[in-house]
Amino acid sequence: MSETTLHESAVVFDGLVVAQWSRRTFEHMKEGGLTGANCTICIWEGFRDTMTNIALWRRWFDEHSDLIMPAHTVADIRRAKTLGKVGIVLGWQNSCGIDDDIRLLPLFKDLGVGFIQLTYNTQNYVGTGCWEDRDSGLSSFGRHFIAEANRLGIAIDLSHVASRTASEAIAASTKPCAYTHVCPAGLYAHPRNKTDAQLREIVDRGGFVGMATYAPFMRSGAASTIEDCIDTFEYVLNVCGEENVGVGTDSTEGQDEAFFEWIRKDKGTGRQMVPAKGKAAVVKGLETLAGYPSLTRAMERRGWPERRIRGVLGENWLRFLDEVWRPAPAKAHGDDQIIQQFARQP
Amino acid sequence: MSETTLHESAVVFDGLVVAQWSRRTFEHMKEGGLTGANCTICIWEGFRDTMTNIALWRRWFDEHSDLIMPAHTVADIRRAKTLGKVGIVLGWQNSCGIDDDIRLLPLFKDLGVGFIQLTYNTQNYVGTGCWEDRDSGLSSFGRHFIAEANRLGIAIDLSHVASRTASEAIAASTKPCAYTHVCPAGLYAHPRNKTDAQLREIVDRGGFVGMATYAPFMRSGAASTIEDCIDTFEYVLNVCGEENVGVGTDSTEGQDEAFFEWIRKDKGTGRQMVPAKGKAAVVKGLETLAGYPSLTRAMERRGWPERRIRGVLGENWLRFLDEVWRPAPAKAHGDDQIIQQFARQP
Repeated sequence: MSETTLHESAVVFDGLVVAQWSRRTFEHMKEGGLTGANCTICIWEGFRDTMTNIALWRRWFDEHSDLIMPAHTVADIRRAKTLGKVGIVLGWQNSCGIDDDIRLLPLFKDLGVGFIQLTYNTQNYVGTGCWEDRDSGLSSFGRHFIAEANRLGIAIDLSHVASRTASEAIAASTKPCAYTHVCPAGLYAHPRNKTDAQLREIVDRGGFVGMATYAPFMRSGAASTIEDCIDTFEYVLNVCGEENVGVGTDSTEGQDEAFFEWIRKDKGTGRQMVPAKGKAAVVKGLETLAGYPSLTRAMERRGWPERRIRGVLGENWLRFLDEVWRPAPAKAHGDDQIIQQFARQP
Repeated sequence: MSETTLHESAVVFDGLVVAQWSRRTFEHMKEGGLTGANCTICIWEGFRDTMTNIALWRRWFDEHSDLIMPAHTVADIRRAKTLGKVGIVLGWQNSCGIDDDIRLLPLFKDLGVGFIQLTYNTQNYVGTGCWEDRDSGLSSFGRHFIAEANRLGIAIDLSHVASRTASEAIAASTKPCAYTHVCPAGLYAHPRNKTDAQLREIVDRGGFVGMATYAPFMRSGAASTIEDCIDTFEYVLNVCGEENVGVGTDSTEGQDEAFFEWIRKDKGTGRQMVPAKGKAAVVKGLETLAGYPSLTRAMERRGWPERRIRGVLGENWLRFLDEVWRPAPAKAHGDDQIIQQFARQP
């Protein structure tokens, strides 16, 4: 089997893409052989703006139906593979998409949201992000939020979450959690990177680690290459085992400086939390998502067995997602109480 | 075939229910032999509150799954019949559920909204309601709204819409429209009732008339009986033909005075548009939706043929809805323009 054929025949799932969405990006995703991806639709947006983003995606699913399709289940992702399309899973990098109203969360499951990161860098109603000085842990609201995400079948992402909050979330969650896009602190100490103990903590509870190919998290920084990515992957595989890991590139293809300014400030407008300027550096060869096959070629050059490659590219992700996306069985009705009707103020 | 069996075996669709939702109401719907109903979730609510109402329904579908289920299609309604449940179609009596953002409308189709009335009594972004002094007709925003509802496959309801706005909507819509819950002005002159010309206008374009059993619209008012309802039905059938009509009770089962105060004011808080006080009068025998079979028995007493009864009870509604709920085919993608991303303000 030729190198190209292995990548082309594989299910390729990207655990985190935060690109500038355009037809060109969708073409790159298809050209890169992506079968599915967790596509960010909420970073600092509240309820209304997050819904608007979903409305935009719904239009794109119509307008670019030759390239992309919505994916609510693992079966949808496998169907996308058959159809030669990219299955889009909508994802949040922050839990602010419900504003302060936990009752709204089910609507997002119905509309295709498959991943929710509890916090993005800073403190919110749920807990603390990894760029805060003080980590206050998981709030009571956060426990309610996790219980509801568990019940609905939405994957909980902890990549940008502070360590104590993350540990408490892993313990509180009845479903395994994920770091969808992280690099190992064992290779490079960085506030976003995870220690070996953190990586083992999540996989010991059945959780998952998506390995980022984000240059700022790698020891070579802007000089990082595909080979550095494979070093990262091999390090994480050694810590976590090869069944519990996949790729989450954290690709920011097409994003401009205004985007990076926005994401680096608390809530988009407040204190600058991430001390950096301008666009993030990119791994050579991964300037766009069309470069994805070069990762597979590098794995093959390192002599990875085909089974490991297929697992890391996508099969591991799908096994994990099939478990966490299953909704809990419905509860039977309770007593004959009058149901609160309408959100109106009488 | 006994009287009970005809009602029990029929598909029974109610074109408008605006009850106080509770397990008791759901039990009455089932007891009344309802197969499906257009259940109001938006009168004055904006985007957020309308979404909250959908979230509440989503919970009720879990908690009361022995009685009700969501119905997005006619096939869902027929499945509800097979399962012995009531298929719930969510409906708006006003177009304010998108606030001012037309892009949000597709989300509601996805979440089960099958009916949208363009205006509720007063003037809004789309046009004018039937309790205003001046009818300014359909706005340009209204034309855009109708085109989008047509494309998505959401039924357009004109029951509370002023006459000029309604005529212009009927002409602008590429799909037939409905008066989901009206009585004939030919029997009783009332601002909410429709003249013979209005009834013919909508059915001449393939549209539909749901006949209300709402006492204030009937000449006997609070003294109205089931027989008065059948008089209303026969009058409308004579005007419209028996294929284009069904029932839309406008049942307000369980609603309190605060609810009626709220609906009678513009936007729930403004000028009182409907000159009435207290709870609306109810037809004797239709105090709750459990009384539905008495309508069928009265039709049989009048000697209606079974085919007409089945048509009026539900089959006519389902034929109409099967046509209007079909979404338009997706458009192919355009050029390679960069797609607007995120609702963020840069």
